[in-house]
Amino acid sequence: MAETDHTHDASATSWIASANKPDCDFPIQNLPFAVFRRRGSPEPFRGGVAIGDQIVDLAALSRLQRLAGLAQSAVESCAKPALNDFFTLGSAAWKALRFGLFGLLAQSLAESEPETVAALRKCLVPQSAAEYDLPVRIGDYTDFYTSIYHARTISKLFNPDADVSQNFHWIPTCYHGRVSTIGVSGQEFHRPCGQTLQFGDQTPALRPCARLDYELELGIFVGKGNRLGEPIAITDAESHVFGICLLNDWSARDIQAWESVPLGPFHAKNFATTVSPWIVTMDALAPYRKPWTRQQDEPQPLPYLDSERVRSQGALDIQLEAALESDAMRRAGQGPVRLSRTSFAHQYWTVAQMVTHHAVGGCSFQPGDLLGSGTISGPGVDEAGAMMELALAGKKPVKLPNGETRSFIEDGDAIFFRGWCERSGYNRIGFGTSYGRVLPAREIT
Amino acid sequence: MAETDHTHDASATSWIASANKPDCDFPIQNLPFAVFRRRGSPEPFRGGVAIGDQIVDLAALSRLQRLAGLAQSAVESCAKPALNDFFTLGSAAWKALRFGLFGLLAQSLAESEPETVAALRKCLVPQSAAEYDLPVRIGDYTDFYTSIYHARTISKLFNPDADVSQNFHWIPTCYHGRVSTIGVSGQEFHRPCGQTLQFGDQTPALRPCARLDYELELGIFVGKGNRLGEPIAITDAESHVFGICLLNDWSARDIQAWESVPLGPFHAKNFATTVSPWIVTMDALAPYRKPWTRQQDEPQPLPYLDSERVRSQGALDIQLEAALESDAMRRAGQGPVRLSRTSFAHQYWTVAQMVTHHAVGGCSFQPGDLLGSGTISGPGVDEAGAMMELALAGKKPVKLPNGETRSFIEDGDAIFFRGWCERSGYNRIGFGTSYGRVLPAREIT
Repeated sequence: MAETDHTHDASATSWIASANKPDCDFPIQNLPFAVFRRRGSPEPFRGGVAIGDQIVDLAALSRLQRLAGLAQSAVESCAKPALNDFFTLGSAAWKALRFGLFGLLAQSLAESEPETVAALRKCLVPQSAAEYDLPVRIGDYTDFYTSIYHARTISKLFNPDADVSQNFHWIPTCYHGRVSTIGVSGQEFHRPCGQTLQFGDQTPALRPCARLDYELELGIFVGKGNRLGEPIAITDAESHVFGICLLNDWSARDIQAWESVPLGPFHAKNFATTVSPWIVTMDALAPYRKPWTRQQDEPQPLPYLDSERVRSQGALDIQLEAALESDAMRRAGQGPVRLSRTSFAHQYWTVAQMVTHHAVGGCSFQPGDLLGSGTISGPGVDEAGAMMELALAGKKPVKLPNGETRSFIEDGDAIFFRGWCERSGYNRIGFGTSYGRVLPAREIT
Repeated sequence: MAETDHTHDASATSWIASANKPDCDFPIQNLPFAVFRRRGSPEPFRGGVAIGDQIVDLAALSRLQRLAGLAQSAVESCAKPALNDFFTLGSAAWKALRFGLFGLLAQSLAESEPETVAALRKCLVPQSAAEYDLPVRIGDYTDFYTSIYHARTISKLFNPDADVSQNFHWIPTCYHGRVSTIGVSGQEFHRPCGQTLQFGDQTPALRPCARLDYELELGIFVGKGNRLGEPIAITDAESHVFGICLLNDWSARDIQAWESVPLGPFHAKNFATTVSPWIVTMDALAPYRKPWTRQQDEPQPLPYLDSERVRSQGALDIQLEAALESDAMRRAGQGPVRLSRTSFAHQYWTVAQMVTHHAVGGCSFQPGDLLGSGTISGPGVDEAGAMMELALAGKKPVKLPNGETRSFIEDGDAIFFRGWCERSGYNRIGFGTSYGRVLPAREIT
């Protein structure tokens, strides 16, 4: 199906020249969505689509009336300060707007309709002049735990003979997270405080987290809901997904260790979650699918989590990179230093399996709900998606090029994520960059 | 402070005669809030206050312009289909509206201002003609685990030598819950399906829950938020709470047992949560406070969870009752049968401690966030807040008067909660009744 969609044609270019550079995250084949305004302005936030180094202001575009039918209805729904109404319109509207935007931004239009292009230029805002908000009002946020490499490494850190819990092979494990503390790239937050029990102590104390970590994840935005009690068949699961962003599930490992029995993490996770401004649509990601294979010696999925499509193209080969910039690096004018690189294709469970499992008990989705993929770690030691793994819980601190070392995240550190897809015969598309930064803990009074 | 508030005066009566009956849940001293409309009508939902067997339509009252200043602003904010804006106004506005309503509904007004009373009568809708919606748009929902009697009984069911987890004595334990499946009294839902591992099996299967349970809880509505990273001092915690409702945290025990390691319950809890329509305000509950005492042989709370006010009046003596009506009882025209009776005053942690603990890590509250108290079980065997405890996980099924027995909740069962406060020298106030009902599981395809 990817082959028949002209918006994936690698030879297509845009009249916006910056979109045609080979390393650009936002060529005409991508067209990701965000909510933005000019930085520091009193303008309302509204939907935008990235193209090259520009943003198509969808509120301005909707007023131009250059789209028709479903595409025009769709762009009008994007003029609001959150994309929930657009999500609610469903996949036909999402595709209609993608096709419409592709047509308006294609190089060919500059030759055939120069007046239209002149009008469209007035709908552009440079990304360098923009600030972003969360792209939707998130109703509920669920975080998954779907990398067997991450789960296995964490288990073995505490007991070298341990493996993942028995249910890991059967359940795309997940738990409910906090919506109110999800922020968009650029989020700064105080190091969390919480109860921790230090080794050898009999009583806990309230302290700043001493083992602050990041988790390299993707955020999966639900576009289409389901009704209370209504399951979602695995064959229908992806039709409920609008697109994917970068997500940092900041984690306080010492708080988590003390609080998590018996009901799971709370303060360990709920102080901050950082997402990228740009949502790359499932339509844009279609060419980068891969077979998902469950090894023969591993339990095969229960029937409700299995399908031909999951097996033949359930994996998404999204390349990911995590990097750190310390205060010292920032002062020295150095850029962030890469910590690890991996791919979402290594994940033990697929997006469709996450969605179907989530709904099977009767829980209802609403447009704009967010799923975290769980930490994305690959099989190699340098493919780990968290500092806890890279530094083996502090046993082997990570050495940074400027001489600093890290066992966990220190005050002032910013963690950067990047994501992109590449495949022979297709154009590279990217997720842009997302970062969050840790401020010192507030004083405990 | 309760003594100086004229709205607690037990001798006050209303010109609405039904409010003056001794067993009425909604005397003039109560004045709880809901969101309602006439049943089956296309009217918009709007705020209402219960008085006797009537509802004061706050949208209609706001148009009457019989209140002034802050009370008039407050009642105007209640004309909307959710009370979030009213919550955001803060405690001075909540109290101004309470005082204003008390004045308008008092018996004395019938004598001094009969024309006003005639106008007010037109703002009344009988409760028997109303349907309810959730009173607020809930941003986030957190469920606590704060009854040591409940926690201890559950632990001992699995291991007679076990006690509560070590952290129970230190942390008001909590985890994030699902907002999208919270429904108002009358909620009907299908028995959830999920993965369970049967005793002796090596592999799980997707099945309807075989151990469905209720949990008798209270819901605590956050009225005033805090900013990201900003803790809430224990002495300030209750100023963030608007009021309290009844809450049933429906639970699937067999699903919970298989899925909960290592990240906590998910399908076990997220299929349905039922709340009462009426929120009883903290102002109305003020006379029913009790000392909260931590036994000398138990760990004392960490300083951030301790205060003179917590100890002297941190407990709320809210009487609670759970009842069951089976399909057979319903067909026979029998009412619900009481399963247990207890009081919120038995809880190991107080409302203020829950709020302060929740915020200490830097997590932000928004007006309308909901906290579940955790199952409320007292020390006696007939004070347990869940069927799992009453029937000892099926070892000792509960016998119902019509000859039926229950180890867990069966299809067609409705669970009813009631709550009320009584204290010598004060009028009885109540929470009304809340119920939810289980439909058969959907077929697994």
